[in-house]
Amino acid sequence: MRATLINCTLKPSPEESNTQKLADHVLDALRQRGVESDVFRLVDMQIPAGVKTDMGGGDEWPRVHESISASDIFIVATPTWVAHPSSMAQRALERLDAMISETDDESRPVAYNKVAGVIVTGNEDGAHHVIADVAQGLIDIGFTVPGQAWTYWNKGPGPGPSYSQTDDGHDWSQKTGRAMAANLVTVAQALATTPLQAPPD
Amino acid sequence: MRATLINCTLKPSPEESNTQKLADHVLDALRQRGVESDVFRLVDMQIPAGVKTDMGGGDEWPRVHESISASDIFIVATPTWVAHPSSMAQRALERLDAMISETDDESRPVAYNKVAGVIVTGNEDGAHHVIADVAQGLIDIGFTVPGQAWTYWNKGPGPGPSYSQTDDGHDWSQKTGRAMAANLVTVAQALATTPLQAPPD
Amino acid sequence: MRATLINCTLKPSPEESNTQKLADHVLDALRQRGVESDVFRLVDMQIPAGVKTDMGGGDEWPRVHESISASDIFIVATPTWVAHPSSMAQRALERLDAMISETDDESRPVAYNKVAGVIVTGNEDGAHHVIADVAQGLIDIGFTVPGQAWTYWNKGPGPGPSYSQTDDGHDWSQKTGRAMAANLVTVAQALATTPLQAPPD
Amino acid sequence: MRATLINCTLKPSPEESNTQKLADHVLDALRQRGVESDVFRLVDMQIPAGVKTDMGGGDEWPRVHESISASDIFIVATPTWVAHPSSMAQRALERLDAMISETDDESRPVAYNKVAGVIVTGNEDGAHHVIADVAQGLIDIGFTVPGQAWTYWNKGPGPGPSYSQTDDGHDWSQKTGRAMAANLVTVAQALATTPLQAPPD
Repeated sequence: MRATLINCTLKPSPEESNTQKLADHVLDALRQRGVESDVFRLVDMQIPAGVKTDMGGGDEWPRVHESISASDIFIVATPTWVAHPSSMAQRALERLDAMISETDDESRPVAYNKVAGVIVTGNEDGAHHVIADVAQGLIDIGFTVPGQAWTYWNKGPGPGPSYSQTDDGHDWSQKTGRAMAANLVTVAQALATTPLQAPPD
Repeated sequence: MRATLINCTLKPSPEESNTQKLADHVLDALRQRGVESDVFRLVDMQIPAGVKTDMGGGDEWPRVHESISASDIFIVATPTWVAHPSSMAQRALERLDAMISETDDESRPVAYNKVAGVIVTGNEDGAHHVIADVAQGLIDIGFTVPGQAWTYWNKGPGPGPSYSQTDDGHDWSQKTGRAMAANLVTVAQALATTPLQAPPD
Repeated sequence: MRATLINCTLKPSPEESNTQKLADHVLDALRQRGVESDVFRLVDMQIPAGVKTDMGGGDEWPRVHESISASDIFIVATPTWVAHPSSMAQRALERLDAMISETDDESRPVAYNKVAGVIVTGNEDGAHHVIADVAQGLIDIGFTVPGQAWTYWNKGPGPGPSYSQTDDGHDWSQKTGRAMAANLVTVAQALATTPLQAPPD
Repeated sequence: MRATLINCTLKPSPEESNTQKLADHVLDALRQRGVESDVFRLVDMQIPAGVKTDMGGGDEWPRVHESISASDIFIVATPTWVAHPSSMAQRALERLDAMISETDDESRPVAYNKVAGVIVTGNEDGAHHVIADVAQGLIDIGFTVPGQAWTYWNKGPGPGPSYSQTDDGHDWSQKTGRAMAANLVTVAQALATTPLQAPPD
């Protein structure tokens, strides 16, 4: 079983990404269940605006698309900016939009029978709405979102510390992340055994 | 296999509910797949505000809770008001909140291994956000939301006709509703075969 | 200058309302600027579902509607449930929907030249989205929302204490609430001097 | 009086932008009220990810920032993608985030005493949520959002035509856009006469 995780931080490498730190716990929990993952830090890549799988001209999204296509599990990890998913996360959803009309050889949208989850960090309130917006987008595209397949971290009210600046609340976020990993793996297995069919006419 | 559908219209019986009309197509599609459904029109019932399963004093929510507990599939059907889920839909999510800490005899949240979907009608734009908010709430509580397990109908821009006042766009909404029914049934079967386990420590 | 504040807690009196405690700071700050306020705790009142100003049969919303109509400032104070505005807040927005087509003797929507703000408490993340949804509803209806005319309080991640159970973060929420009060009063004065006109054809 | 409008289409010039077409009606209405506007099509510019006013290395955002700083009115015009503001709109909100801590010589956040509005187009449902998210972001940053200071266009349900492909519904969207322009100008004048003060301690 394989997973693809996109880190939608706004910070290019080698800056430290708070989002990656929480994501690493989920990736560890997946590895302990035998799932190997590809990780893409989108801000380090050339991902132009658009709603096609390949926008040409050095577009690096096709590599991400290929990885997602080969995976059973897809995870969007994003910081919270102005209480929304980051512009890199929204860019990814726009590029994923093309998948709605891509079908496999049984006429199924290619995201059918893949599961998805969401990881959110922030220095302020906003995570549930980020989860709502990202999950809705992923469900639109055809991914199944298992129960409680998310985790988040922030401290409020108002602007507070970043994930790396404190240990406060990490236990809850990491434990929730382990449940997320477990549920992603189980539902991916369930769909492998009992797959969705092509939509009826 | 059983389903529970709550109709969150603001209109008491015997007024015509646009939401029920679209819901009926999804219920038909479920029936054709062997799924019998209970339907509750919440505005006709005594459902007080609160976040407990039984608020006492003639509270009729326990009947809904019991039906959901006995079902594999749960559907929230709601009109769009001020671009949000109706107050009856939010009332239901608040009452469902108690389910987060209710567990079965294997220490699993009781909504684990149940699937959920969303049906939205409106006389104006807003359905995707209604789906986002309701789906996020259901996923928080433990339901799994299959890919594309929703349908909606509205005509914009600005205030337009209600579902019952035109046939325009019904084809798309009903076809999408049939796909929703298929995906709910398949993922419910998948989870019956390969169930989620209690969250790891 | 007058204000109307609706407290959208789910808890009937005499239970303690966390939301009222933060609201009281904003009401104090308004009073220091010479603004007297009416406060309605909606859950204690008979407010049936619907989208008309008077649903009949003992409906108590008309009293709230009258107070808002006589006020320059309107404040929605709501707890966060499942990361959304409470069902009482959504109920209020639905009832306010009727105001869109109520006009004054100069053909202006009655909410024109009134300002509005939002107060949010919760035991978990969600406030920004609550502010977004409530503000959007109020702007739809015709209220002007001044810059930073909101305050909120919650501690995350995951379920945490309620406002009354800790002093942590109160300073920030109260200071932000005083700025909210100042901005509501100033923009209400600005609109009194330079009022919005009826919409052009 | 001056306005700045950012067009957050994903399509680079010279492709036709549906969003620009609806925006042009609002810009015309502003011009008839004596307001000249600067328009930026962000996708044609070099706007790197980040939350500072100048990210360096050829960053073109400072030109937009300068225009907004010199304007009384700010308008975000965005398409709807996956039911959200476009990644260019979210990019702009992230860059505007720096303005929260930029103050004028009276210690006021620089967006105080500026008004803002939202224009949304799409080939599917989603506009109200786009308005909610963008307005919440702008209010956070300090802009005042006048009553009904938005317009939108889409036709549902499901994927439908783009704004340029039909005239259906244009009348409503353009009339609503003229009201938006009127309300932006009036509240900008009101704030010029009765300005917001620095937040109290």
